[in-house]
Amino acid sequence: MRAWHFAERPDGEPTLDSFELREYERPTPRHGELLVRVRYLSVDPYMRGRMRDADSYAEPWAVGDVLRGGVVGEVVESGSDRYAVGDLVAGRGTWAEYSVLDADDATPVDPEVADLPAYLGVLGMPGRTAYFGLLDVAEPRPGDTVVVSGAAGAVGSTVGQLAKLNGCRVVGVAGTDEKTAWLTDDLGFDAAINYETTDDYRAAFDDAAPDGVDVYFDNVGGPITDAVFTKLNVDARVAVCGQIAHYNAEAVPTGPRKLPQLIASRATVKGFLVTDYATRADAARERLEGWVRAGDISHRETVVEGLEHAPDAFLGLFSGENVGKQVVRVAE
Amino acid sequence: MRAWHFAERPDGEPTLDSFELREYERPTPRHGELLVRVRYLSVDPYMRGRMRDADSYAEPWAVGDVLRGGVVGEVVESGSDRYAVGDLVAGRGTWAEYSVLDADDATPVDPEVADLPAYLGVLGMPGRTAYFGLLDVAEPRPGDTVVVSGAAGAVGSTVGQLAKLNGCRVVGVAGTDEKTAWLTDDLGFDAAINYETTDDYRAAFDDAAPDGVDVYFDNVGGPITDAVFTKLNVDARVAVCGQIAHYNAEAVPTGPRKLPQLIASRATVKGFLVTDYATRADAARERLEGWVRAGDISHRETVVEGLEHAPDAFLGLFSGENVGKQVVRVAE
Repeated sequence: MRAWHFAERPDGEPTLDSFELREYERPTPRHGELLVRVRYLSVDPYMRGRMRDADSYAEPWAVGDVLRGGVVGEVVESGSDRYAVGDLVAGRGTWAEYSVLDADDATPVDPEVADLPAYLGVLGMPGRTAYFGLLDVAEPRPGDTVVVSGAAGAVGSTVGQLAKLNGCRVVGVAGTDEKTAWLTDDLGFDAAINYETTDDYRAAFDDAAPDGVDVYFDNVGGPITDAVFTKLNVDARVAVCGQIAHYNAEAVPTGPRKLPQLIASRATVKGFLVTDYATRADAARERLEGWVRAGDISHRETVVEGLEHAPDAFLGLFSGENVGKQVVRVAE
Repeated sequence: MRAWHFAERPDGEPTLDSFELREYERPTPRHGELLVRVRYLSVDPYMRGRMRDADSYAEPWAVGDVLRGGVVGEVVESGSDRYAVGDLVAGRGTWAEYSVLDADDATPVDPEVADLPAYLGVLGMPGRTAYFGLLDVAEPRPGDTVVVSGAAGAVGSTVGQLAKLNGCRVVGVAGTDEKTAWLTDDLGFDAAINYETTDDYRAAFDDAAPDGVDVYFDNVGGPITDAVFTKLNVDARVAVCGQIAHYNAEAVPTGPRKLPQLIASRATVKGFLVTDYATRADAARERLEGWVRAGDISHRETVVEGLEHAPDAFLGLFSGENVGKQVVRVAE
């Protein structure tokens, strides 16, 4: 079978040089494991952190290993009573045609609720990230103005819709007119800002968030975040989910100091990781499945065809190629 | 009587040009008010913010007004049943020989517990700032490493001692060897860093906080804060009390971006104002009086003699002249 091997650590912006497609023996599942034929593979911004050889929350990828990532596929060999051959499952696998999953970590996929790729997006790790980051970390209240950066991504698009369900005014920030139109026309966002065509971010937020910002869900960092911090209301809450604008930085990035802005606003800024909410992951997925089934939460996936294009799909995350969740179709 | 008049708003570093000592009629208290002969007057870093004509949590001072500030003194005329002539009280007054206080806002002063200036420091607003900022905002746990900047000031010296009472390892940052010696030798801090004689702040924290930082109580901002943020442990809490390093900045100060550091650490950064805890102010003062009486919390005041030197005392805050609380003796 074919799988992607991690060839070298990037400096700054990653390139195709970090990836090498190789032939491997198809692995054999042990007790408690499942062999899955991968249908869809997930590429996510957090993977840039794992390419770095530094202490972080996740073990860095070792050069020479097969790349790891979320997958959805069909069980072809089962070492667990929990799943039978033919079952559809999602879980943590590899960038490969076949992947061994830990049965305890896998989750069932119900194609009646949504197509398979959604289980890598709104019904997978990104959806849970939105759920816990918004509801547990940012604690939105009805009437709050909620700003989301990276709003047309898998996490951001779910955050904005959850905030609408919570009775908030929602402002999304994204990088194309197609994306901002999706946010306002299809997802019910109250306003959306195209940061690529906006010169003055502060003026844009004056228009889009005239009563200031109560919650900021930040996936991006950089100048958008700088502008939002000047608009924080008293008791504002900032959930720091990602900082994709800085992931490829070769030196420590600098910008306006933000701590002085937190005193008068008594704002709270908190970083979080979805993995800290693992004990509630099933409950969150079931809630999200309910909203998707009821049509309360819409979702979209951008599909790149073929395992051989997985690195392109990953690199495209940093130029904002994806609308909604970026996935790779490995097999039908 | 003499009082200080706010003559002009400073740009950047304030100078004596902002202050003018004038003769005024002695004011008359109305119903619910007290006329107090001022014994001691407080100068505090937050006053720099009130000199700025900008939206903030406090009404800016109006040019031409008498300057306002905390005072302790003796009631010479009472419009309230709560206090009699001769009582010692503390409250919000003016930079003047006589001051009218709101009786509801005044607090009784007990010279058996501590000398009068302590009621402007550990038993006044700075002590309450330390109490609520550490205990409510930063929530220290036994065994935590707590770092305090501005540690030899009125707030910082109380924070460190409260953290010791909570079973924490405490590291203070201050600007002279006299101050660091006071922290470690008299107040029981576990370590202290003199930032004026330290070249490499990160190395200094590697030594002083070898297990990383669980709580950072920030009075200062700037490069000390930049170094502490690189040492935050998982679940760290940062209470942003003051940012004196930036109060005189003429443009928005820049520095290393901190949001990327909050994700892996899941740290929480929160600004606060002591005024938000007004309903619990009396309870806090009583707790602090108990600790001072029992000798569990020590305090120190730096006294400048004479109302005519109040502006010098204020300006000295920005060069770190004070050890403990800076006060001005107006009358004996």
